[in-house]
Amino acid sequence: MEQEATPFVEHLGLTKVEGYFPSQTPFVAFQGSCGTDNSVNVTVITMGKDNVYATGVDNAGTVPASLATFLALSSSKYDLVLNAGTCGGFQRKGMAIGDVVLTTGVANHDRRIPIPGFDTFGIGKITTFDPTKMAETLQYKTGICTTGNSLDKVEKDDELMLVNDASVKDMEAAAIAWVCKMYNDTPYLGTKVVTDIVDGDIPTHEEFLANLASAAQCLQTALPIILNFVAGKAIEDL
Amino acid sequence: MEQEATPFVEHLGLTKVEGYFPSQTPFVAFQGSCGTDNSVNVTVITMGKDNVYATGVDNAGTVPASLATFLALSSSKYDLVLNAGTCGGFQRKGMAIGDVVLTTGVANHDRRIPIPGFDTFGIGKITTFDPTKMAETLQYKTGICTTGNSLDKVEKDDELMLVNDASVKDMEAAAIAWVCKMYNDTPYLGTKVVTDIVDGDIPTHEEFLANLASAAQCLQTALPIILNFVAGKAIEDL
Repeated sequence: MEQEATPFVEHLGLTKVEGYFPSQTPFVAFQGSCGTDNSVNVTVITMGKDNVYATGVDNAGTVPASLATFLALSSSKYDLVLNAGTCGGFQRKGMAIGDVVLTTGVANHDRRIPIPGFDTFGIGKITTFDPTKMAETLQYKTGICTTGNSLDKVEKDDELMLVNDASVKDMEAAAIAWVCKMYNDTPYLGTKVVTDIVDGDIPTHEEFLANLASAAQCLQTALPIILNFVAGKAIEDL
Repeated sequence: MEQEATPFVEHLGLTKVEGYFPSQTPFVAFQGSCGTDNSVNVTVITMGKDNVYATGVDNAGTVPASLATFLALSSSKYDLVLNAGTCGGFQRKGMAIGDVVLTTGVANHDRRIPIPGFDTFGIGKITTFDPTKMAETLQYKTGICTTGNSLDKVEKDDELMLVNDASVKDMEAAAIAWVCKMYNDTPYLGTKVVTDIVDGDIPTHEEFLANLASAAQCLQTALPIILNFVAGKAIEDL
């Protein structure tokens, strides 16, 4: 979402790149550099605003996320895709509002296809590279991110999020990681800030809206630290 | 799915096109022509087999469908996207197994985002061009297609599919229509054959698997009739 990306884009002084995405898409890209000697080239992409249903809200969910990711990977060679954004956190896994979480893997909780083979495809579990050492150094938490296209949840979602052993819940991660895996196995790192407690008592959309701005600020602080940490390192040394 | 496309591909004698899709994707394209004097150029695309989760089953659902559609529209100018496949039918809307349904619009039933604006985005209703006259001429049924990433359904899905006024249910239509609308408002026509009754007593996956082969044969019969009907006509004259 724009509101999640803006503080970071401004903090790094990135520039909007016209023509980065095909003109038919609403996606937006900013580029620039950061780190020691500006040695890290950064492209921030957002999914832009909905121009299909004429709601004008930010595009959200797996469909625009996977398409934007694929187009970005097609446009240039990237060493790492960092999926930064907000998420719900499970208090049963020790998550609290404001936590920064580096994800160890992804799965889906809203793709139920009860046919052998298709069931595994639907869950779509991907174990991404292990950020445990990095998380220990930077004092962040780690866990699996479960993805679904709804901000809220139904009972069946609860059941499947538990099966997925999720620490956090979002609306894009599993689709972005799917594209990365498909696209030359591009390394994927989820960096999520908790805006609401999934297994708590307050409706998600209320907590989410109340904490979105502070979470975006939190991302602005965390992302440069993470970029500095990964700069110049091979994935296997992280 | 391959099993849905193969009878039609063989019937028209289409040829597999290497290099149509980027090499990173598992998507497959066949091309050829049909109609009087072979005047209709046809590209059939399927989502290919899953090579990310190593299940080897056909890719399914909104994420691969939207990506494959976008890449196809990027590769050439198309007059019409015909989303052909199987679906569940609602008997309360007069649908029966084996029916051919031309869709009048699409919506989602698994994207619940209870925030003003985002709620409308999530449902993602698109009214596509009106195939009523065509359906009357060809003796097919019409109705709205509701899309979700699960083959089965939960109680909340039932509620939202009713709100969407759906006659049929599938796993891709709303995403494909989203891409078409975004991509220069390319005309979209859903052509669906009913393999199972959504509001019936038999579990979807059992009925689906039992009727998949006969539905694919039914598509093979219907699709050339539809292509002949649309050939040479402007969308507004259909």
